[in-house]
Amino acid sequence: MTKLIKNAKIITMSDLGIVNGYAFIREGQFVEIKAGIPSRQLESTANEVIDANGKWMTPGLINTHGHTGMALLRGHADDLPLYKWLEEKMWPFEAKQDYEAIKAGREMAVAEMLLSGTTTFLETYHLFIDEFAEQLSEIGVRATLMRSMIGLCSREEQEEKLKEAVTLAKKWHNHANGRLQMMLAPHAPYTCPPLFIERIVEEASLLQLPVHMHLAETSKEVHDHIESYGVHPFDHLNQLGVLDKVPWLFAHCVHMNEEHIAQMPEYDLSVSYNPKSNLKLGSGIAQIAQMMKKGINVALGTDSVASNNTLNLFEELRIGVLLQKGILQDPTVLEAFEAFKIATVNGAKALSLNKVGQIKNGYEADFILLTNEEPHLQPKEHVYSHLIYAVNGSDVTDVFVQGKQLVKNRQLTTLDQEQIMYTANKAYHRIHHS
Amino acid sequence: MTKLIKNAKIITMSDLGIVNGYAFIREGQFVEIKAGIPSRQLESTANEVIDANGKWMTPGLINTHGHTGMALLRGHADDLPLYKWLEEKMWPFEAKQDYEAIKAGREMAVAEMLLSGTTTFLETYHLFIDEFAEQLSEIGVRATLMRSMIGLCSREEQEEKLKEAVTLAKKWHNHANGRLQMMLAPHAPYTCPPLFIERIVEEASLLQLPVHMHLAETSKEVHDHIESYGVHPFDHLNQLGVLDKVPWLFAHCVHMNEEHIAQMPEYDLSVSYNPKSNLKLGSGIAQIAQMMKKGINVALGTDSVASNNTLNLFEELRIGVLLQKGILQDPTVLEAFEAFKIATVNGAKALSLNKVGQIKNGYEADFILLTNEEPHLQPKEHVYSHLIYAVNGSDVTDVFVQGKQLVKNRQLTTLDQEQIMYTANKAYHRIHHS
Repeated sequence: MTKLIKNAKIITMSDLGIVNGYAFIREGQFVEIKAGIPSRQLESTANEVIDANGKWMTPGLINTHGHTGMALLRGHADDLPLYKWLEEKMWPFEAKQDYEAIKAGREMAVAEMLLSGTTTFLETYHLFIDEFAEQLSEIGVRATLMRSMIGLCSREEQEEKLKEAVTLAKKWHNHANGRLQMMLAPHAPYTCPPLFIERIVEEASLLQLPVHMHLAETSKEVHDHIESYGVHPFDHLNQLGVLDKVPWLFAHCVHMNEEHIAQMPEYDLSVSYNPKSNLKLGSGIAQIAQMMKKGINVALGTDSVASNNTLNLFEELRIGVLLQKGILQDPTVLEAFEAFKIATVNGAKALSLNKVGQIKNGYEADFILLTNEEPHLQPKEHVYSHLIYAVNGSDVTDVFVQGKQLVKNRQLTTLDQEQIMYTANKAYHRIHHS
Repeated sequence: MTKLIKNAKIITMSDLGIVNGYAFIREGQFVEIKAGIPSRQLESTANEVIDANGKWMTPGLINTHGHTGMALLRGHADDLPLYKWLEEKMWPFEAKQDYEAIKAGREMAVAEMLLSGTTTFLETYHLFIDEFAEQLSEIGVRATLMRSMIGLCSREEQEEKLKEAVTLAKKWHNHANGRLQMMLAPHAPYTCPPLFIERIVEEASLLQLPVHMHLAETSKEVHDHIESYGVHPFDHLNQLGVLDKVPWLFAHCVHMNEEHIAQMPEYDLSVSYNPKSNLKLGSGIAQIAQMMKKGINVALGTDSVASNNTLNLFEELRIGVLLQKGILQDPTVLEAFEAFKIATVNGAKALSLNKVGQIKNGYEADFILLTNEEPHLQPKEHVYSHLIYAVNGSDVTDVFVQGKQLVKNRQLTTLDQEQIMYTANKAYHRIHHS
């Protein structure tokens, strides 16, 4: 199966820079990216030829932290103190969600992500992973899944959860032609006792899988940890000796100090920056610019729509970049090209995906096309600037994963949008009023 | 001329709350807003009936600070230190702009604003106001214009500028069936000597017009002012005794202290919050939540696309609200309903527009329709939440000013989008390479 995309302005995010030309795809991978017009011979060998008509073509965006299992909770409650929001609004609703509700929310979330240009996402949740993995294989999007584990329970229950997580990881890792990847996921230092974290890391190391965990999201969490253990949660992990055992992906990292930021580059770890959720919940602002200066790999995440309330990575990135400039009162930090890496190249690295996040030969053909025919993207020529400061998710017209077209002229090809929205609203009302 | 909008979910922002029903418009004003289905009799009297099909209908958004004259500069330069950006990039380009270039940029800016739901905007710039006013009368959008004055010149030149500003104000105030309003605009305390500010306020008082000025945008500006005059620019205005002479609209107000915020409610003044520009230029973050708590009228502005880089008020508002929660580490500040007032009710107040910003009888029929058929707006029922946290500018399908439809199913009715974009790109290249 071969595909030719021609007449595109290709923002490769690789050594190739920007290429005004074409990309040839074979068996889901880029095999030729060249400037100019493809030869008639090449064109005739393609099973499908797509004329991009001057559209921008970029790597698909990568969302490195989220909970699609909570997608029905968009707008369910906002503007409340964190613990009231959680205890009175989020948890009671989540406790009532059944498979049907979670499935409905997840389909809606995947639809939203695809339509705004996300080709890879990370899902950390505790329910119906098997079913989701099965479904994602068919939808065709790339995903990294994990059974999130809260360890505030007996050792037996902890081991049950870990067993389930390991079984799922073995079953689905590298499945769906490699589009599904797995991680292990202790929820957070404040919900997982040290021994449990050590056990999880031990299993992850055996499976050669990365570990994903929430870290230092709120000041309360850090304060409580110091109260309980005498140290900041990051220092605690450091003391446990688990940081050099596996690759780590930490979500949030809002409340890290200078010493932590100095130590972090010593390990194979990435940070998932979730600026909108951190702002909306009043958690604060992660010191991302400083982390990147130290060489720490920073990627982008949305968290769930309950605390965001969208899954639009173009918006997430824009806010995240502007925020760093404002908070540091320095317009020069996170220059546009470096910033776009956060949602592409760095995202792939954070998920340990070797051949994703750039448009270059031998890489997976995960990419998007963006129309530039709207007033907010003129004058057209400042492409990197516009990708960060002006593009809307709604400018994405076409989305491809592994060469397969999942969005065509803003229509989903492997999901039924109308059906999804009907089902999601129905499920929300059923749970809400039950 | 009468118009009936039926089957709408009307978010009135007035005492009426949310009305699932219809709105009847006569001669550009709302005359009946009711729940349910309109009578056949009423429907038969309407010159035009528009079935909103369940769409959301809200007051049009109000942009209280901007410079459309700089619209061609989107993406021209980003990520530079402020003075380098100004002196090496902005000013040299602006100096080369002729009428054709400014006109092209302005049309593009108006197109972008209309397409993302803005029905009223403020323009402060020094060139071609007459021509712009003429053109805006035809386009049909509502606008508040002013000849921006920099006073770093001789007394004679100052008086020349003021004379021009006064002539324009007299000529265009209340023009175009009241859609055009005028203000006087000393650029900023750091560019206008005290005597010149006093002269401008004197003229504004005679004309009974409000005064618009940049204030305390950067810490450097405040620092320099203290160095030159011994006081913060706001204290300086206070000492000059100009604050109670006219209604004031101050743009930015990033660097105000607690005492200023305590004093501000004593005057008839509003603040135009420009969060994205303030972040992007590294200026900082205005203490909007505290100001609103004190009863200060806070409205929303985008500044120009050179420092934003969009004119999308839904995005501006979302970022502005999230920012306040994050910086204060308090998710309860700026609750969604109050927040939506910033872009509607408060905007009208900031521009001294009495019958704009709400959907209610006797008010100007400036409103927008938003589709809610996209995944990012489900579950549908949390309307205020979605207006702040989830709506995109691209969800706006239809825009009306004074009852006249200016955007119909995402197409401009009084502007030629294709022509505008062609002309804007051509003008940019001509100036850039000249």
